[in-house]
Amino acid sequence: MLRTVSIICLIAISVGAYSQTDAEIFKKIYQTSLANGKSYDWLNHLSNQIGSRLSGSLGAERAVTYTKEELDKLGLDKVWLQPVMVPKWVRGAKEYAYIETVPGKTNTINICALGGSVPTPSLGLKAKVVEVSSFEALKALGKEKIAGNIVFFNRPMQPDLINTFEAYSGAVNQRSQGAFEASKYGAIGVIVRSLTLRMDDFPHTGNITYNDLPIDKRIPAAAISTNDAEVLSTMLRLDSNIKLYFKLNCKQLSDVQSYNVIGEITGSQFPNEYMVVGGHLDSWDLGDGSHDDGAGVVQSMEVLRLLKTLGIKPKRSIRVVLFMNEENGVRGGIKYADEAKQNNENHVFALESDSGGFTPRGFNFECNEANFNQVLSWQSLFKPYLIHFFEKGHTGTDIGPLKSSTPVLAGLVPDSQRYFDYHHASNDTFDAINKRELEIGAATMTALVYMFDKYGVK
Amino acid sequence: MLRTVSIICLIAISVGAYSQTDAEIFKKIYQTSLANGKSYDWLNHLSNQIGSRLSGSLGAERAVTYTKEELDKLGLDKVWLQPVMVPKWVRGAKEYAYIETVPGKTNTINICALGGSVPTPSLGLKAKVVEVSSFEALKALGKEKIAGNIVFFNRPMQPDLINTFEAYSGAVNQRSQGAFEASKYGAIGVIVRSLTLRMDDFPHTGNITYNDLPIDKRIPAAAISTNDAEVLSTMLRLDSNIKLYFKLNCKQLSDVQSYNVIGEITGSQFPNEYMVVGGHLDSWDLGDGSHDDGAGVVQSMEVLRLLKTLGIKPKRSIRVVLFMNEENGVRGGIKYADEAKQNNENHVFALESDSGGFTPRGFNFECNEANFNQVLSWQSLFKPYLIHFFEKGHTGTDIGPLKSSTPVLAGLVPDSQRYFDYHHASNDTFDAINKRELEIGAATMTALVYMFDKYGVK
Repeated sequence: MLRTVSIICLIAISVGAYSQTDAEIFKKIYQTSLANGKSYDWLNHLSNQIGSRLSGSLGAERAVTYTKEELDKLGLDKVWLQPVMVPKWVRGAKEYAYIETVPGKTNTINICALGGSVPTPSLGLKAKVVEVSSFEALKALGKEKIAGNIVFFNRPMQPDLINTFEAYSGAVNQRSQGAFEASKYGAIGVIVRSLTLRMDDFPHTGNITYNDLPIDKRIPAAAISTNDAEVLSTMLRLDSNIKLYFKLNCKQLSDVQSYNVIGEITGSQFPNEYMVVGGHLDSWDLGDGSHDDGAGVVQSMEVLRLLKTLGIKPKRSIRVVLFMNEENGVRGGIKYADEAKQNNENHVFALESDSGGFTPRGFNFECNEANFNQVLSWQSLFKPYLIHFFEKGHTGTDIGPLKSSTPVLAGLVPDSQRYFDYHHASNDTFDAINKRELEIGAATMTALVYMFDKYGVK
Repeated sequence: MLRTVSIICLIAISVGAYSQTDAEIFKKIYQTSLANGKSYDWLNHLSNQIGSRLSGSLGAERAVTYTKEELDKLGLDKVWLQPVMVPKWVRGAKEYAYIETVPGKTNTINICALGGSVPTPSLGLKAKVVEVSSFEALKALGKEKIAGNIVFFNRPMQPDLINTFEAYSGAVNQRSQGAFEASKYGAIGVIVRSLTLRMDDFPHTGNITYNDLPIDKRIPAAAISTNDAEVLSTMLRLDSNIKLYFKLNCKQLSDVQSYNVIGEITGSQFPNEYMVVGGHLDSWDLGDGSHDDGAGVVQSMEVLRLLKTLGIKPKRSIRVVLFMNEENGVRGGIKYADEAKQNNENHVFALESDSGGFTPRGFNFECNEANFNQVLSWQSLFKPYLIHFFEKGHTGTDIGPLKSSTPVLAGLVPDSQRYFDYHHASNDTFDAINKRELEIGAATMTALVYMFDKYGVK
């Protein structure tokens, strides 16, 4: 039955919380980004000339130099490097693993060390495998069943959620905490099903934490591809005595000097009010980090370039911050927030792009109701560009440390369907980037920055 | 200045034009499509086991057989083939082309015949090239400059439009009418810049029309890749005397018998009210037609499968129609509408998916205000699935012939940014499909069909 209830209601609507000029500026921003954008060229260089950029690596160092040089060319008011000490973890020689059904009969599988893992013994490690889907299941098995074995965490990301980041959140503790949890019960190693919704052959890395475990209690942890996770699981159902061999050659070295790269257009009216837009310059080492987070880096640079190119003179100081070390330490984000506090800088707004260079759908916000309602009053400006999503939610890891002192945090929300196909894997490469999707993202970020600069935060 | 004008207004809003049950059904539809969908498997077969499906080809014939067999398995009330005569154009041996700067010095370029083109003479065709960007420019040059030459239409798709179909519409007359127009001025052949926004090496085919030109006045027409269009244009600027050689081996044969494939769930309350959901089974011959329109085919099949699987018994008769010959004749669409009229079938709704298997953004509608407002009253049901786009606009070529007699036509609107990267080219293949994007599209179509079945058209 069609239950149409027509009600007469009194609604106070904010209309005209923007002007016709704003609509024209939006149009110019999108047109310029799409027809004469720079983000794709920058990303091409970052991905194909420099490549992966794990903290402390030569790639990271070259990315600092390159992006500073490119910012220098934009005619900003200031460009500088902010020193920050970062951890240096190296993968070493490529990992190797196989399943052994009977001695001598082996199936090679696709494996990679998880970031921060200790290595296996130099001859590798071979043991029986205990498959679990949760820490509760691990606990229920206890030391008796776990000690001396390899724990295999195989809980898939939930496929029926629309937001793939939600599915990731529901599975990521296996990767981040799995080694720590399994070590409690005497496991000698941990294997994790890769965090992707696709069935394929790519192992996906990502950071782990041992919390305060003493070095000698730390056990090696690695990811295997989703296809191999299915194979291993099936083989274990047929024969629980099969063994897994794996060898990791990774190493944690001493911290090294690195940098956040920062550029600023100084505000014409309120130079002491700072607005930040950024992404992270480091990446994992397997692909070239095009989506994570080369895209966010070049989009953030493009925001300032578009403002300059279009002759928009912001009232507030707009900074692009290319954060170092998001992936395994967030040292850059913490450093930036610490220095801002020491210098009594008044940060009013920060926007991060770190969810891939896919078609933008909108933004998440961490802010009060007044600012959120202000954004909602701008919705119709964004609608012609198919930007419909404005919600409260997680914004960004690098800008997180600014939260306590910054009234508005925002995170670009691109379409999330393909993100985990590439996340932390060797196929996160430039060919997976669509030029237009990247450029529309940059324009969308610029439009939001423009509005908050013009109308201020509440 | 922040110009917030708060106004008190009286608005009659339709709320509750749906029930809580509907929200629960939506959830089940999306969950089932994502966690236990069939569309991706079907498309895998259609693309990788059958391949391209140009009207009259063996692939098209096998696709008819396969999809009928698959529909037969779904336990529908009826499945049948609707005979339709279709044109048969064949490409023949692969085309070949080069630019000749001086005799003996040549650059090979990537070329393909446009669908429906006559062949070149058997030894190919070589002539000077006149580049134009519009029919007006062509006319201005006139017979004197055009006669005996090859016309090169090189107007790019406009990059700064958000909707890539709008950019396509602004450029497609070069392909569809270029040969006809150029022949008026004595051109001996036509070369068209491929209709894509990407710079790459793929020539994109597509249909042309000679209108009522006598056979002996028809000139061969082909597309070259965007990269080669840039090369050719640059070389022409340097030297207008360079020549282009090309050879097309295509042929128009006699019409052949083919079929629309149709399946029906007969309505429980209003069996004589028909609702159609469909895509087109034929494709161009260069790739395997995964996006155009294998995606629409399997999504349409999935609509009926989801209804059956979820135990939803529609009040109205729901038909999946897999139309033959959208690409070069629309014979299937015309045939279906003609028979519906002859049989006095009361069609109340038709939905087409023919814009690629990308993340769905919403729908276009051709309907009256009452039906459109009804859809708008359902918006919040779709919002959790990030379906925000509900506009009046073009719905579908195959359901077009139903328009005069059908109150509601709808077209699925997926994200359009990547569509023309693949459209009618050899890279429109299964690997360009993202499983989740395809499945969310199928669910979105099912949800709309469910609502119109439940609440009827106005």
